[in-house]
Amino acid sequence: MSKTDTTTDLARYCQELADRAQAATRQLAGTTGEKRTAALRRIAEHLLTRSQAIIDANAKDLAAARAAGLSDALVDRLTLDEKRVRAMAETVGQIAGQTDPVGQIIEGHTRPNGLRIEKVRVPIGVVLIIFESRPNVTCDAAALCIKSGNAVILRGGKEAVYSNAAIAACVRDGLTEAGLDPNCVQLVETTDRAAVGHLLKLEGKIDLAIPRGGESLIRAVVKQAHIPVIKHYTGNCHVYVDAGANDQMALDICMNAKTQRPGVCNAAETILFHQAAADRGLLTRVCDELAIAGVQVRGDERTRRLFPAVAAATEDDWRTEYLDLTIAVGVVDSLDQAVDHINRYGSKHTDAIVTSDIGAAQRFVGGVDSANVMVNCSTRFSDGGQYGLGAEIGISTDKLHARGPMGAADLTTYKWVVRGDGQVRG
Amino acid sequence: MSKTDTTTDLARYCQELADRAQAATRQLAGTTGEKRTAALRRIAEHLLTRSQAIIDANAKDLAAARAAGLSDALVDRLTLDEKRVRAMAETVGQIAGQTDPVGQIIEGHTRPNGLRIEKVRVPIGVVLIIFESRPNVTCDAAALCIKSGNAVILRGGKEAVYSNAAIAACVRDGLTEAGLDPNCVQLVETTDRAAVGHLLKLEGKIDLAIPRGGESLIRAVVKQAHIPVIKHYTGNCHVYVDAGANDQMALDICMNAKTQRPGVCNAAETILFHQAAADRGLLTRVCDELAIAGVQVRGDERTRRLFPAVAAATEDDWRTEYLDLTIAVGVVDSLDQAVDHINRYGSKHTDAIVTSDIGAAQRFVGGVDSANVMVNCSTRFSDGGQYGLGAEIGISTDKLHARGPMGAADLTTYKWVVRGDGQVRG
Repeated sequence: MSKTDTTTDLARYCQELADRAQAATRQLAGTTGEKRTAALRRIAEHLLTRSQAIIDANAKDLAAARAAGLSDALVDRLTLDEKRVRAMAETVGQIAGQTDPVGQIIEGHTRPNGLRIEKVRVPIGVVLIIFESRPNVTCDAAALCIKSGNAVILRGGKEAVYSNAAIAACVRDGLTEAGLDPNCVQLVETTDRAAVGHLLKLEGKIDLAIPRGGESLIRAVVKQAHIPVIKHYTGNCHVYVDAGANDQMALDICMNAKTQRPGVCNAAETILFHQAAADRGLLTRVCDELAIAGVQVRGDERTRRLFPAVAAATEDDWRTEYLDLTIAVGVVDSLDQAVDHINRYGSKHTDAIVTSDIGAAQRFVGGVDSANVMVNCSTRFSDGGQYGLGAEIGISTDKLHARGPMGAADLTTYKWVVRGDGQVRG
Repeated sequence: MSKTDTTTDLARYCQELADRAQAATRQLAGTTGEKRTAALRRIAEHLLTRSQAIIDANAKDLAAARAAGLSDALVDRLTLDEKRVRAMAETVGQIAGQTDPVGQIIEGHTRPNGLRIEKVRVPIGVVLIIFESRPNVTCDAAALCIKSGNAVILRGGKEAVYSNAAIAACVRDGLTEAGLDPNCVQLVETTDRAAVGHLLKLEGKIDLAIPRGGESLIRAVVKQAHIPVIKHYTGNCHVYVDAGANDQMALDICMNAKTQRPGVCNAAETILFHQAAADRGLLTRVCDELAIAGVQVRGDERTRRLFPAVAAATEDDWRTEYLDLTIAVGVVDSLDQAVDHINRYGSKHTDAIVTSDIGAAQRFVGGVDSANVMVNCSTRFSDGGQYGLGAEIGISTDKLHARGPMGAADLTTYKWVVRGDGQVRG
């Protein structure tokens, strides 16, 4: 097959994926929440009863990953076992039990001329989710899209191709058994990278793209897309220890934010100390504890003067999401300097202040331009589950449409419905 | 100056515009609604006291427009007189009087572990608005952005360059007098089309682009943008006259939707009749009245069988927003066929059904994928003012972030603020 044929075929394949998804949304528009919930319950059952088949499929991906020399961390992210499959089924069950966002009246009122105006929550339509190696995203994303009445096209990492296919089979069977179109959930079944480029240009057929993953993936999506994108950058999260911090609280929060689960997006990557907090011994105390916990500290000049046993932080360190037991530490002269640093180097994900000074807390909350701003608690709390919102499709680092933890309701839009009895405009 | 120099200079100019806007947002973040309201009141005063200067500036644009042979409709859109300037000042005053959206708590609750979680409305940041000939957009957009705490970069049509500059001078003076940075509102002061391309690539510096205008303008913006875009396509609006329509109501709504103000985006461009409604004489009655009102009707085959005195509608007619006294008329076999036609040819703006059948109304509301769906009233009501929302920056035909009439609150995002007293995650 010539290059041109392949490109044409790939473009046609992507068009057909989108057309099938569009057809599925039209069917979804006419169904009840009861039917969507029934599908989710069936999917959860299939995941449990077919867990061995999923684990067997996963074993093929793992063998390929090891042969390709993937890092232990990546292999771990890719691995499914009985417990993880059960957790996936439980998440689907939880999503099934959540309130149906579709059809909610967001607001409404009657105008003086008698027109009744309602803002009604409706599905967005067709969502494209592009993600990397974790196969449970296939399941979570499918469940959240079904819950919210959207059709979804899933483009997973090539490392997880067998695992994703096994999970998607459970999802599609569940949809069919509940009387829904299985094309509500479709996997992109080619590993050709050009497919994403084609899909991202299908304005009018795909309503939204959500890339989840590393910065280079997301930048590539933004550059190519003609459709709206909600970006889920991983988090370069900060803890700022203010002059007015309670020392023990600051220590506990720094340790928890960095070490409780270093490989996730809401773990801290930089700690900034106010000079006064550093000078009274708090910097040394925190760095000591971090070192004991096996964390490699990289400090600016002032940090190294107080705690010489650390490597020098470079400009790059302030921008790095280590997702590992490494942290950058700096000293600032003021809260404003901390806010500027965070707005400059951060990823607008989650940033915390530790302070007992109510005015400082308020200035930090107002000044930091991030999706989640925490006062006197760990960055690790920025999470849909911890906020009590249920399962999330990720944490949006964007400002438009959805910001921070993004759940089923954030996968909806609204329409204005206006009901009259013959009103015309004079 | 060589081509390269010009390009470099233009890129630098655009960067500097964005940098100044960014600096203005940082100042805005620390100001109160009182100060923003005071600026709006000063702007309204300047518009009134300097109306002659604005009209004089407008005269220069009008002279150039006539010399360039612009159509009467375009010249009319461009024209400012005493009354129109007063209307601009009144709109600014109304916006000043609206509730401040910034700082509203959208939702909030306390978690079992004591964390207090709030979703707080905050400005988006820097907004780029690209619009065509109407100079009042300069004023409306500036006022809505100031109200919502955003800095705005305005790129108007080259036909209105003198008018826009005179209006922007009033705006910037009002900002300065209220103690705000005049760079909260900046005009792009080059007519070089490449400037828009540069601005649309400033990811991280400009948070949102809103193009208002014709389809080709909007498509060009979407193709070039690396920043989020909310599209404001003009409206290809439909009235569907169901089998169950009240005849007199259908006639009144069709006439009002087409003829009350044909040049605006929520005027009707196509009427679809259910075969049963057409057959009982309603199509003839409506087409007769339209013809008497000077409307040129273009009909499909079935329409022309019932009302032979009309031109044949081509495929293009179903897609056309005439913004004029022309309308396409078709006959369908069923409500579903009407819904399919609207979803296929419409612009997702505003579509109406006339029916006394409650089931038909519900199916239409559920099936039509448009920002505004009207039951038994004119499409002309889809408007922020008519909905009681106050002034609008336009009518979004997009699904993400804001759909339909888009007011000051839609120019905000939110941040999650989480307050604790030392909580860490276990």
